[in-house]
Amino acid sequence: MTKPKIEDITIDAASEVRIRQRLTLVALGKEKADVALRVGRLLDVATRTWADDQEIIIKDRRIAYVGKAGSYPGEVGLRVHEPGLAAIPGLGEVHKHIESSHLTPEWEAALVLPRGNTWTCEASHEFSNVNGARTLEFWLKAREAGSPLKIFPLPGSAVPPTAYEHGGGYFGYDEQKAFLQESLMTAGLDEVMDWPAVWNPKNPSYERLWGMIRATFEKRAVVEGHAAGIRDLPTINAFAAAGLSSDHEAWTVEEFWEKLTHGLFMELRPHSLPEVIKGLLDRGLADWSQVALTTDDRSASDTLKLGATDHNVRLAIQAGLAPEIAIQCVTINPARHMRLTPWVGSLAPGRYADIVLLSDVERFEIAKVWADGRQVSEGKIYLPEVPKIDWPDWARKTINIGRELSADDFTIEAEPGRQTMKAAVLRPFHWTDDFLTFELPVKDGRVLRDEARNITKFSVIDRFSGTGGVSKMFWLGCGPATPDTALACSMAHDKHNIWCVGSSDTAMAKAVNAVADNDGGWALVREGEVVARVRYEVAGLMSCRPAGELHEEMQALYAEGEKVEWMYEPTFQPRWFPGFPERLAFATLTCAPWRWVLVAPSDYAPQGLVNVQTGETHPVVF
Amino acid sequence: MTKPKIEDITIDAASEVRIRQRLTLVALGKEKADVALRVGRLLDVATRTWADDQEIIIKDRRIAYVGKAGSYPGEVGLRVHEPGLAAIPGLGEVHKHIESSHLTPEWEAALVLPRGNTWTCEASHEFSNVNGARTLEFWLKAREAGSPLKIFPLPGSAVPPTAYEHGGGYFGYDEQKAFLQESLMTAGLDEVMDWPAVWNPKNPSYERLWGMIRATFEKRAVVEGHAAGIRDLPTINAFAAAGLSSDHEAWTVEEFWEKLTHGLFMELRPHSLPEVIKGLLDRGLADWSQVALTTDDRSASDTLKLGATDHNVRLAIQAGLAPEIAIQCVTINPARHMRLTPWVGSLAPGRYADIVLLSDVERFEIAKVWADGRQVSEGKIYLPEVPKIDWPDWARKTINIGRELSADDFTIEAEPGRQTMKAAVLRPFHWTDDFLTFELPVKDGRVLRDEARNITKFSVIDRFSGTGGVSKMFWLGCGPATPDTALACSMAHDKHNIWCVGSSDTAMAKAVNAVADNDGGWALVREGEVVARVRYEVAGLMSCRPAGELHEEMQALYAEGEKVEWMYEPTFQPRWFPGFPERLAFATLTCAPWRWVLVAPSDYAPQGLVNVQTGETHPVVF
Repeated sequence: MTKPKIEDITIDAASEVRIRQRLTLVALGKEKADVALRVGRLLDVATRTWADDQEIIIKDRRIAYVGKAGSYPGEVGLRVHEPGLAAIPGLGEVHKHIESSHLTPEWEAALVLPRGNTWTCEASHEFSNVNGARTLEFWLKAREAGSPLKIFPLPGSAVPPTAYEHGGGYFGYDEQKAFLQESLMTAGLDEVMDWPAVWNPKNPSYERLWGMIRATFEKRAVVEGHAAGIRDLPTINAFAAAGLSSDHEAWTVEEFWEKLTHGLFMELRPHSLPEVIKGLLDRGLADWSQVALTTDDRSASDTLKLGATDHNVRLAIQAGLAPEIAIQCVTINPARHMRLTPWVGSLAPGRYADIVLLSDVERFEIAKVWADGRQVSEGKIYLPEVPKIDWPDWARKTINIGRELSADDFTIEAEPGRQTMKAAVLRPFHWTDDFLTFELPVKDGRVLRDEARNITKFSVIDRFSGTGGVSKMFWLGCGPATPDTALACSMAHDKHNIWCVGSSDTAMAKAVNAVADNDGGWALVREGEVVARVRYEVAGLMSCRPAGELHEEMQALYAEGEKVEWMYEPTFQPRWFPGFPERLAFATLTCAPWRWVLVAPSDYAPQGLVNVQTGETHPVVF
Repeated sequence: MTKPKIEDITIDAASEVRIRQRLTLVALGKEKADVALRVGRLLDVATRTWADDQEIIIKDRRIAYVGKAGSYPGEVGLRVHEPGLAAIPGLGEVHKHIESSHLTPEWEAALVLPRGNTWTCEASHEFSNVNGARTLEFWLKAREAGSPLKIFPLPGSAVPPTAYEHGGGYFGYDEQKAFLQESLMTAGLDEVMDWPAVWNPKNPSYERLWGMIRATFEKRAVVEGHAAGIRDLPTINAFAAAGLSSDHEAWTVEEFWEKLTHGLFMELRPHSLPEVIKGLLDRGLADWSQVALTTDDRSASDTLKLGATDHNVRLAIQAGLAPEIAIQCVTINPARHMRLTPWVGSLAPGRYADIVLLSDVERFEIAKVWADGRQVSEGKIYLPEVPKIDWPDWARKTINIGRELSADDFTIEAEPGRQTMKAAVLRPFHWTDDFLTFELPVKDGRVLRDEARNITKFSVIDRFSGTGGVSKMFWLGCGPATPDTALACSMAHDKHNIWCVGSSDTAMAKAVNAVADNDGGWALVREGEVVARVRYEVAGLMSCRPAGELHEEMQALYAEGEKVEWMYEPTFQPRWFPGFPERLAFATLTCAPWRWVLVAPSDYAPQGLVNVQTGETHPVVF
């Protein structure tokens, strides 16, 4: 008599008991196992040691037994032998925004699993701001449909990102408590980033944010941090004292070291990885147990080109880190930090049978990946059928402007009788205390752009309330110089309204309308015509299709974008690059160290220009 | 205006928020700190590196800031300078039965704090079996009265130890869920030890035990293991597959290695520590992050002689382990495993200001200990006043036999007409599948001892129900040869009834009555007279007084015990030693690998002799 398969899709305590009761009997050889995967060698990440010629005994989706080949006492269904391959645990992302792949979770799985990534702590900052109430439902849906990628959602701490924005979600104590109560897949609270709201009792987000922290402590879950720009010792100390357990924003080895030695679990991203790894090795760091490597944000196109978690590991090895330590930094270390060791992070009994098979350890070449106890990739080819998910309207119909926009929505009125007006001007990634000020010409009662000084218009359109509110102001050095041209996108970190930059108000309206017609994504209007669109029809952030297709559409956008002349003013820290201004999608962030930002119109900031550190607002022209 | 002190005694999420909100401001220098403790050097356990001339800034009971001396930007009340001392985090016990010190928690604190131990995961196996419902209340009471030792209770998984016993507590799903819900101090589920009840669905404790495991998973807490005697690879695999996360029962380096490489967090006790550490070093173990050192059981007398956690660290250093790694094994490693890193395990902001100051790192000599932000010891001297706790009746009046016992309670009746009878005989730590069998003489209808063959009587008296039930049988090689002599004790692992061994039934009754009169403890009757008693008036396991006083009383017992001639039969694995049979207190254990044991009379085992692996019972004579 065959006992029914235990589904074991998402983790809950009652199923966990049934699963482990059965695994125990399988390990003892008292119940039949499904598969024996015999490998050339196997890495134990607890001791960082290899063992030769091992067999991994699998029941349903889990590992029941690991030992020398031939040592398992029980009966086995299928036997697979990979004598030339080295087995390591499925790789984990301790902090990743799947939204930045712009793929829905089932297609993310198809992209990243062949690249070794079998589990992801999803930093649900983006989706939660679009439809907060559906956060868990959204992230678990693909898994429930059979996708082998384990997604552990962490509800965003910044929902809304600041008290000056509202829209698709509101998370406080009650919401976070409910998420943690609802599912053990919820691993904690995503990156607490609004530092002024943490330290300053007068900040309007203070109660909301500490409420979420309280709920997370109550449920014995993990409070993730985000300490961007926090480099001085008192603030690093304060950040750790606040109970924020980690950071992924260290840019230099000095900053990384100070944070690591002040109790923070450090998550290292590729852009600062080579310098930091080399610096840590130079300092003789012998214990890497409080370090992880992670991706944070990476587009599907970049993943196709560079890799997923495997890319991060290769970078670390190239920087001089021993491959085995690099592997620990994407397996046991993050699993332990996120309190997920019973399920992921090591090739040990009870864990999911998620196994990366390497043909070359030093080069970190992945030959095959297993997940849920079966082979899911051969080289870069994803083998399972991607589940067909009919994403419901709450995921697909999230762009709600309420009306067609027109050029008038983007005009900036002058005070009567003025020939010029002062304009508050921002640049992308403008982190200084004050905005810039420029004197701009007035014509027909409207304040004008000044292409000669690299000044054009930037706008944020409320896409949640259906009232069609539009904030607009002048920005420096980032928009099209080509006439009647505009670029719009519904990825507008972190609130994910729609941003638009353009050389004419008509072009801006056209670009935004084109984005809205597509339920989200990108639109480029060049000299009056829509020349490229990229569809992000799910939450205005992701697309439900293969990475390759999305990649092609992005390439077409870039190709059309190359025909546009883009203004440019260099900035540093972070650097602003010339050309297609893709990174404007991150230029609407409101977290530390941002000060003055443009948000959608609200009661707090009717024109949208607000200092998010102080709450001060200012007219966009004066 | 001085804000009121935040009490910060036991951890709850709401207070945690208030505490951290304030600490954040102190770290930034915006609120005044209480104390700056400047030290010669300080060990960061995350990186295993020393930093010279550091200051630890303290607010209330917590660390707000750590940095180079003079770097703190804020105002400080008291400044203390210890230029010659090295600061490390307060030491933690990942698995300790405070009951085995035989001191109540406030006196345990006075004993162990000067020896560096500032936090303890209390394996509440003993107290929970005596008064399960009061488990949290009991373990938190001393802390609530101001004792600086942080006790994190783990309710015992073995309450009752087997399905064949009942008495002072019953823990299943509901009870464990309530404990974890009631307090964040509850760190998990204490050592799951009843292995037959884990793997065997037919075991009568199966549902109860898996119910506790389920509740622990639900609350994101830690399921601790106890894998005594589990050395074969399939069972080690099965143990890990069951979700039991740790073990502290490895005796050899091979066993330790197999368990460590199969996903178990390994907790190493002193008796096997030297061999295991040397063996691990010989194998070249470079990553010790899944290893802790811990005490499990140690009497107050032994702690006075050897030390507490500091003894374990010294043993490890003597075995060749780098002092810094040994320190990690009693700080960050166990804190991480038990998910207590926000509070203990490192000298980092947000954690309790529990600091061990070493005068010699290599010799691990402790000069001073701070806890809760103040100095609590100078050398071996404990400085604070020990809180006076008037332990209530539910803690003090736990011996309930219901009547005075007499010699008749200990007789073993023969079948009518028999001249001899077969007796089922046990030895202490008799782990083989069958009991021994001896033919014993019968006189006046009663089966007699046989001193010539080293056989005397052993008894377990129900001290919970008030019915005065007595189990008795013949044991080999462990009782008094001296006539009319008996030894009784209310520490009788794990159910903590009263055990008694004696050369006459009259002496046995007298010894048990003497224990009961004292509300628990030891009594020695020699040649008809009570010659020594040790009082364990709290739960029949602990005494509410200084370690030195208890030690003196124990020494008096030993001195009188030396005047007794004790039978002896050598046993191995574990070894049974000649002389005063103190370890009989552990000879009533029922966990794996025990088979045949004597328990108090119950419906399951009316005469008390039961095979706890199978549930089979057997008459004591036949």
